[in-house]
Amino acid sequence: MNVPNSRNQIPEGVRDQLPREAAQMRRLADRLGEVFGTWGYREVVTPGLEYLETVTAGAGSLGRREDLYQLFDRKGRTLALRPDMTTPIARVAATKMAGEPLPLRLSYFAPVYRYRAQKAGSVSEIWQAGIELIGAAGAAADGEVVALACGALAASGLEGFKLGLGHVDFVEGIFAEAGVDRATEEALKEALVARDLVAFEKGVREAGLPGEKAELLTAMASFQGSYEQAVARFGGVGESGAGRVVRALRELGTMLQLLAELGVAGQVSLDLGLTRSLGYYTGVVFEGYAPGVGSPVLGGGRYDNLLADFGGRLPATGFALELDRLLVALERQGRLPGAPGLDAVVECPPDRVGEAMAAARELRGRGLTVEVDLLGRTGAELVKYARARGARVVSLTEGTGGEAGEVLEARRRLRVAAVTPIH
Amino acid sequence: MNVPNSRNQIPEGVRDQLPREAAQMRRLADRLGEVFGTWGYREVVTPGLEYLETVTAGAGSLGRREDLYQLFDRKGRTLALRPDMTTPIARVAATKMAGEPLPLRLSYFAPVYRYRAQKAGSVSEIWQAGIELIGAAGAAADGEVVALACGALAASGLEGFKLGLGHVDFVEGIFAEAGVDRATEEALKEALVARDLVAFEKGVREAGLPGEKAELLTAMASFQGSYEQAVARFGGVGESGAGRVVRALRELGTMLQLLAELGVAGQVSLDLGLTRSLGYYTGVVFEGYAPGVGSPVLGGGRYDNLLADFGGRLPATGFALELDRLLVALERQGRLPGAPGLDAVVECPPDRVGEAMAAARELRGRGLTVEVDLLGRTGAELVKYARARGARVVSLTEGTGGEAGEVLEARRRLRVAAVTPIH
Repeated sequence: MNVPNSRNQIPEGVRDQLPREAAQMRRLADRLGEVFGTWGYREVVTPGLEYLETVTAGAGSLGRREDLYQLFDRKGRTLALRPDMTTPIARVAATKMAGEPLPLRLSYFAPVYRYRAQKAGSVSEIWQAGIELIGAAGAAADGEVVALACGALAASGLEGFKLGLGHVDFVEGIFAEAGVDRATEEALKEALVARDLVAFEKGVREAGLPGEKAELLTAMASFQGSYEQAVARFGGVGESGAGRVVRALRELGTMLQLLAELGVAGQVSLDLGLTRSLGYYTGVVFEGYAPGVGSPVLGGGRYDNLLADFGGRLPATGFALELDRLLVALERQGRLPGAPGLDAVVECPPDRVGEAMAAARELRGRGLTVEVDLLGRTGAELVKYARARGARVVSLTEGTGGEAGEVLEARRRLRVAAVTPIH
Repeated sequence: MNVPNSRNQIPEGVRDQLPREAAQMRRLADRLGEVFGTWGYREVVTPGLEYLETVTAGAGSLGRREDLYQLFDRKGRTLALRPDMTTPIARVAATKMAGEPLPLRLSYFAPVYRYRAQKAGSVSEIWQAGIELIGAAGAAADGEVVALACGALAASGLEGFKLGLGHVDFVEGIFAEAGVDRATEEALKEALVARDLVAFEKGVREAGLPGEKAELLTAMASFQGSYEQAVARFGGVGESGAGRVVRALRELGTMLQLLAELGVAGQVSLDLGLTRSLGYYTGVVFEGYAPGVGSPVLGGGRYDNLLADFGGRLPATGFALELDRLLVALERQGRLPGAPGLDAVVECPPDRVGEAMAAARELRGRGLTVEVDLLGRTGAELVKYARARGARVVSLTEGTGGEAGEVLEARRRLRVAAVTPIH
C-alpha cells in the first residue's frame, strides 16, 4: 500500500538539512573531528548496510530488534541499518584492525537508524559524532573518554553542560541486593532509562518489597550528592561491604579524583541510577546534558564484552554526541553562526558570459564566494537578488551604482566596470 | 535464511573505510566542498530513507526499480535507499526551497545505493560528491557546471583528466532518423551506457537497417573529432537540417566556445554517443575520465523535467563525482597523502595519570596530535609503540633516551622529564 502524494514527502522521523542547517551540522562535525583528531582518534567510516547479526551483537535485553530498519538482499539474507556506530566499529576493530598496535582510538560522524513510534521530538535518523577507545581498561581510559567528552562539548561552544556519571555494576548490585524479580527489574530499568522517577517509585511500591529494600532502590534512583555522600549511603551495601556495589563506587571515586586533577570536576557529578538503553555496557557509563534540553546530548560508557562477539576480547569505552540535540541547545544559547555568506554576484550579459565567468574565477582565487548571475538580470533586479543573498554586485557594464573607494579598488583590480555595495 | 558467521562480515558491494582511507575520503570531500562553496554552492543533506515514489521520480526507462534497496515502514509503506542524490535534491528544491531566489546552487557529499550483481569492481554503496544548479537554463548554466566539474577534478589533484560532452537530443534525434524499433533502441542504448562499441555495432548489424542508417548510428557511437568535424558529418541530419540533431549540435558548439573562453577547452571533447544510465536527462550530458580508470569518475547533465515530478517545473543541471573511483585514480598518480600523523605519546605511569593527561592537553593546545599511553608502557616498549605510530615519546620520568636540543626545549616548556625523538 502506497499513500498517494507521498512523493513530495519524507518518511516519519527523518529530515532534510537545508543549507543553513547543513552548514551548522558540517561546522559542528568539523570542530568535533578536529578535537578528536588532536587526541589521536582517527575517523573510520562503516557501510550504511550491515548484516542483521552484526548490528544485534551485544544488544542485550534493552536493545530491541523491532526498532531496526530491516531489508533483504537477493540471496535472502537479512540486512539492517545500524542502530548505533559502536557495534560496527567493534566489528572493524576486532576483524580488519586486529593486528594494529593497541589501544585503537577511532572516531566517526554518521547517521544511525532506530525505528520509533512518532511522538514529540522522537527521530528515526540520528546524526552522531563520537569516539571509541578500544584495548584499554581501567580508570585512566575511562577518565580520558570522559575528559574528551567534556572537551568535545566545550569545543562545540555549548555553555553550562553537565555530565552525569554512573556504573552498570552499581545498578546491578543494588538490584541484586533489593532482590526484585526479573520482570520488575526490567520494568524498573526501563523507568531509569526514561529517567521517569515517578514510574520508578510507583514500580517499587507495587513490587511490595520490604521497606529497607524499597528505600535502597529509591535512594539509588534519586541520588544527588558528592562521592563522600554516596559512600556514606551505599558504602555498606553487599556482603560485608565487599560486593560489586562497593567496587563500582570505588571505580567512580578514582575517576572523579582524576577528573578533578584534569580540571573538569565542576562539570561532572554522580548519577548513580544512570542506565543506558543499549544493553552492551559493562562499567562506567555517562550522559551529557545541556541546559534546557531534556534528553542527553551525549552518552557513552564502557563495554568490555562487545568485542568478544566479533572474536576480539578487548576492553573498550566510548561515547556518542547526539548532534541534532546539541544543535538545538547551541541555537538556544545563540551559539550557532548564520548561513555561510555569498560575497558577490557577477552580472552576466548573455553576450559576455566568458568575461563574467573569468571575473568570478579571479575573485574566487582571492578566497571570495562568488556567483555568476545566470538569469541575465540587470540593474535593480540584480541588486535586489544580491541584497537578498547579502552579496555585492560586480558589474561588467558602466554605471550600475554608487562607487565607494573600496568599490573602485575592486573595480580596478578586476578590470570590470563597477562593483555595487549592498549598503 | 541467515548464513552462519556473517556477523563478522559486511554485505556484498559495501566496504569499511579504515583510518587511512577515511582520512583520504574526508580530505577529498573537504577540498571539493571548498570549491563548490566558493562558486556559491551550499551543502544540503537529505535523509537516508525516502519513499519509493520519491526515488523513482523521473527515473525513465533506464533507471531500474529492481536495483533499489527497498524496505517497509510499520504502516506498510515502501521506503528505499536513494540510488542518486539528484532526485532527493530535486524534491527539496521543488518543495522546501520553493520560495528562495533562483537559481539554487546546492551541493552534497553522501553515499547512494544501487543493488548490483557482484562482478569485478561493482559496488552497491557509492560515495558521491556533487552539485545541482536549479532554475537556470541555457548554455551559460551548462557551461558553469562543466567548468566547475573541471575545477573540482583539478582541485582533487587529478592530472590528465578528460571530459566528454554529449547531448540527449543528439542521440534521440539520430535514433529517430535511423528509424529503429523500440526494443532495438533500448538494447543499443544499453550498449552505449556500457560504452560497449562491439555490442553496439553487433546490435546495429542484427537490426538489418539500410546501410546509410546503420552507418549513421555507428558514426555517432564511434565519433571522435572536433566540433567542425561533427558539423560536417551530422549537420545535415534531420528534415532539411533543422531538426533536434542540429539544434543539439548548435548547443554543444556554444558550450565548447564558452569553455574555450574559460580556458578548459583542452580538457573537454565531444562524445556524441554519450548516454547516461539514469533516465531523467534532457539536454547536455557529460562524463569525466581519469587516465587508466575505465569507468567515469564524474557524470552529469541537464534534467529539465525532473523538478516537475515534484511540482517544481524548473530547468536544472548538475554532476556527481564518483569518489571511490577518483581515489583510485589519485592513488595511481601518487597524489594521495598518507595517514594523518601522531606527533607524540605521553608516558603515563599509573600513579601520574593526571599529570600525563595535563601534559597532553598542553601539547594539544599547541596544535599537536597527542595520545596518552593508557597501557602503562615504559622504556623500550613505549618507544617501540611510538615508532610504529611515527610519534615521539614524551616522558614524565628521567632518563628515557638521548635528548637533542629540540627535545630539551620541549621538556623545559612542558616541565616534563624527557622527550624521546623517534630517530
